[in-house]
Amino acid sequence: MSDVKQVVIIGGVAAGPKVASRIIRLAPDAEVTIVEKGKLLSYAGCGLPYYVSGVVKEQAELMSTPVGVVRDPVFFRQVKNVHVMNQTEAVQVDRAGKRVEVRDASGGRSWLPYDKLVFATGATPVVPPIPNVHLENILTLHGVHDAEQIKTLLSEHKARDVVVVGGGLIGVEATEALVQCGCRVTIVEMLPQILGMLDSEIARLVEQHMESHGVKVLTGTKVQAFEGQGRVQAVVTDRGKLPAEMVIAAVGVRPAVGLARAAGLEIGTTGAIQVDPRMRTSDPDIYASGDCVECVDLLTGKPCFVPLGSTANKQGRVAANNICGLDDTFPGVLGSTVCKVFDYCVARTGLTETAATQQGYDPVVALAPAADRAHYMPTAKPLLLKIVVDRNSRRLLGVQATGPGAGDKRIDVAAMAITAGMTVDQLAQVDLCYAPPYASAMDNLITAANVARNKLDGLMTGVSARDVNRLLQDGADFVLLDVRSPAEYGQVRLPHSTLIPLGKLRSRLDELPRDKPIVAFCQISLRGYEASLILKAAGFKDVRVLDGGVAMWPFEKIAP
Amino acid sequence: MSDVKQVVIIGGVAAGPKVASRIIRLAPDAEVTIVEKGKLLSYAGCGLPYYVSGVVKEQAELMSTPVGVVRDPVFFRQVKNVHVMNQTEAVQVDRAGKRVEVRDASGGRSWLPYDKLVFATGATPVVPPIPNVHLENILTLHGVHDAEQIKTLLSEHKARDVVVVGGGLIGVEATEALVQCGCRVTIVEMLPQILGMLDSEIARLVEQHMESHGVKVLTGTKVQAFEGQGRVQAVVTDRGKLPAEMVIAAVGVRPAVGLARAAGLEIGTTGAIQVDPRMRTSDPDIYASGDCVECVDLLTGKPCFVPLGSTANKQGRVAANNICGLDDTFPGVLGSTVCKVFDYCVARTGLTETAATQQGYDPVVALAPAADRAHYMPTAKPLLLKIVVDRNSRRLLGVQATGPGAGDKRIDVAAMAITAGMTVDQLAQVDLCYAPPYASAMDNLITAANVARNKLDGLMTGVSARDVNRLLQDGADFVLLDVRSPAEYGQVRLPHSTLIPLGKLRSRLDELPRDKPIVAFCQISLRGYEASLILKAAGFKDVRVLDGGVAMWPFEKIAP
Repeated sequence: MSDVKQVVIIGGVAAGPKVASRIIRLAPDAEVTIVEKGKLLSYAGCGLPYYVSGVVKEQAELMSTPVGVVRDPVFFRQVKNVHVMNQTEAVQVDRAGKRVEVRDASGGRSWLPYDKLVFATGATPVVPPIPNVHLENILTLHGVHDAEQIKTLLSEHKARDVVVVGGGLIGVEATEALVQCGCRVTIVEMLPQILGMLDSEIARLVEQHMESHGVKVLTGTKVQAFEGQGRVQAVVTDRGKLPAEMVIAAVGVRPAVGLARAAGLEIGTTGAIQVDPRMRTSDPDIYASGDCVECVDLLTGKPCFVPLGSTANKQGRVAANNICGLDDTFPGVLGSTVCKVFDYCVARTGLTETAATQQGYDPVVALAPAADRAHYMPTAKPLLLKIVVDRNSRRLLGVQATGPGAGDKRIDVAAMAITAGMTVDQLAQVDLCYAPPYASAMDNLITAANVARNKLDGLMTGVSARDVNRLLQDGADFVLLDVRSPAEYGQVRLPHSTLIPLGKLRSRLDELPRDKPIVAFCQISLRGYEASLILKAAGFKDVRVLDGGVAMWPFEKIAP
Repeated sequence: MSDVKQVVIIGGVAAGPKVASRIIRLAPDAEVTIVEKGKLLSYAGCGLPYYVSGVVKEQAELMSTPVGVVRDPVFFRQVKNVHVMNQTEAVQVDRAGKRVEVRDASGGRSWLPYDKLVFATGATPVVPPIPNVHLENILTLHGVHDAEQIKTLLSEHKARDVVVVGGGLIGVEATEALVQCGCRVTIVEMLPQILGMLDSEIARLVEQHMESHGVKVLTGTKVQAFEGQGRVQAVVTDRGKLPAEMVIAAVGVRPAVGLARAAGLEIGTTGAIQVDPRMRTSDPDIYASGDCVECVDLLTGKPCFVPLGSTANKQGRVAANNICGLDDTFPGVLGSTVCKVFDYCVARTGLTETAATQQGYDPVVALAPAADRAHYMPTAKPLLLKIVVDRNSRRLLGVQATGPGAGDKRIDVAAMAITAGMTVDQLAQVDLCYAPPYASAMDNLITAANVARNKLDGLMTGVSARDVNRLLQDGADFVLLDVRSPAEYGQVRLPHSTLIPLGKLRSRLDELPRDKPIVAFCQISLRGYEASLILKAAGFKDVRVLDGGVAMWPFEKIAP
């Protein structure tokens, strides 16, 4: 254990307190000081949407330990033996003199000496450069103060028409919270889809789910200006004007690196502080952790900026370990993310199909919609999985999940498979636990792996909903063959589809043209796959299977 | 693709239909015949307890596809092109002549020729050799017929007093089902604990949960005889007589290997059919899959018998692939298991502490009780984890989970870590997905890994509840130091414990004797760990932390 004496930590929300607590455990005699600009410490920023919606009742719950003790400066002093200077800003770092100048609430300045310094300065929300962005009631959802302002607008000013600018994670979480408070919410997203962490057709499924909860989702739409007298009254977009009593600007966050940059520390290509796997910056006595640092993408080896509370906590522990002389490294991230969107669990890890292609992989995808546990259990819910596999190595590259089923579980399992470098052949054989209340005998992820193996082995030729939709729009001459039951066909069908139930297919082969492409499908495309095998065995040449079937078709459907 | 022609499969419940379906997909021209002794095919045996309890309403749901089509012989013929001979028993195999003799319901015998033969004969429940075991209303819960009999006894004969003999998985699932039907259930288990797949103190937590739902759990108790006139009326044990209108004998299953043994196939040390990783028996033209075969334990490399529907499905696919000339292997199992026990999810994977010790490992354990998602979310539920780590390699060996929280998710992640051979150092850094509705910033499994790392690195000395309880019973002279708050102490406390809240500890050190061992604890033993560090830094020599704290204390507690 090194004889670390004085440690100064700049930032007291997530990574900072973690670094402090761990150092005090490893080196009880160290003098650890947290310098925090704001009033509040160690609060769960990720919980803010649930405080806005009222799911979390009290602000204090977000800054309490699991047994209900509020983490304030007195707690840190008495329980942790950590000195906290809140409402105090670090203004400059004198690296040669190993000291930090701070300014307290009253404007008083002083210098804090350090043996080791830690940047845990986090990230700040981007304020979009849009005319009139500083009108009242245009807010972000980043700190507790933002959440309180939103709650006040809702309760005292009865704000109901809300525009959320930006369809990323925060925008989507804020939307759900506001809808639950009774607001009419429109999301305006500049890109062609919300949730850029997903492939477009998966994002489209999420958009449809949000629309089913009354949210207006305007993708490919640009905000041109805000209008209002003092407070915002409307949002002007390139597709028209939207009334707005409140606007949530959720266009992303930027690492807070001003002080680090001024101190001459290396800043990475992503704009965040560059650190080595021991969380050390370019100055060996200065560490950094949390939302202000750059990570390594475990799959591509490239730098990335993925600010998350989970990563901040792990990095904080690694920084503290190294400061105290324990060797520890943080290897990187997979971009594992999960988000509750009304009744859907939306989650992902690794590379999307789009990202895999951009990175030079030859991706094979498999879509697997199925119940998330034994289908006969009343608690079973649909879960839609998309997995992305490298054709050459057969390794799993990424998984996306959406739907009401337990997607978080499968994404965590997938993250383990990717971390371990598993092929889909290995993934198909893993011993996941099974009982009807929790899983199917063939877990969703194992089924997805097997679908991918069928494709890799040339047993199945898939075609994406995107491509089939394009063929339909182009009026292409092909057979879109639905092999479900007449009852299923009666409920909902795809445009221009032909019904021949799988059980009748062998006896009705002569109804199908041999000179046209055939795209077979069913609800989830298992029967579609079986149909394609029957057709191929019967000599049909151009037979493909619609990836994901009706369950994952994100375009127009006909409900007679 | 090999030109497989005739395949006969003996057994039509789980592995058999899987083999058949996959073969037909790979080789549509093959003639595939399933020979099934019973009337019903392809039913979800694991779902029977939920059919008994009424959670699953219709028997047909257990044998339907996810879209509600019943898998009967007509379905197999029309949809799958598989010939099914149900109510037909395979009576002998002529390996030299490559044919199987079968006997149908009317007693007629015939020979079926085969190119490849598959044993999917499953397992049969053990009938315990207890006097009067053949009295009426002494049942097993293995097939649909058993479930129907139990339902009839409950509805028509109003059976209420039930004794379940055997506290394994089936016994526990049957107990839950029967309690939900209004029965008074006693479990009689010969061994000192139920659920031998768990370490004893974890099993004790499950026993307490069952007792809180009115179940009488008699461990270390032997059934000596059944009593009754025609139908059972009482169960005589070495600890007294129990009234019983119904008895469920759930003392385990045995692989059904009679026919395989008679055919001269190799039987493994576990009593199940020996197969290679391609699921081939000692006869190259005979394969086997499912509950009748022996598996390899992935950790120890030793043969094991773990009959599960999930394994049966994977093995069936591997057998079919190899029969059709695709190379595929089934590597083995970890004994991953999950079981719903009222409000608890009880799950495990890999080795228990007991098994690890027996296998020659030097195990280090870590107990981590915590909320299964952000503790401030109203949906958060307690999850109690125990992880077992090899001291030498620092590799994860096994994890057990119990409590109302999402244990199945963590056990699946753990199964992946064990499969990949991960150390706890690697596990502590994995990028699991995080958002308050699904997980904590530090996932339960990552926290458990970090507790184990603290122990491995000598930062924390743990002591098990078992050992502390023994010290208490022996009247040993030590301080059992509770560092929770007075409010927590007022609710429930451990016997002979002393309260000094963590925040006061630094100022009240002189109240503690320096010449006696101190065992510190709190609710989950995080504050207990911090207390131990404060005490060690203050010069106290013999300081340990109670593994798992009050949350995982399975012995007597005092509620003032």
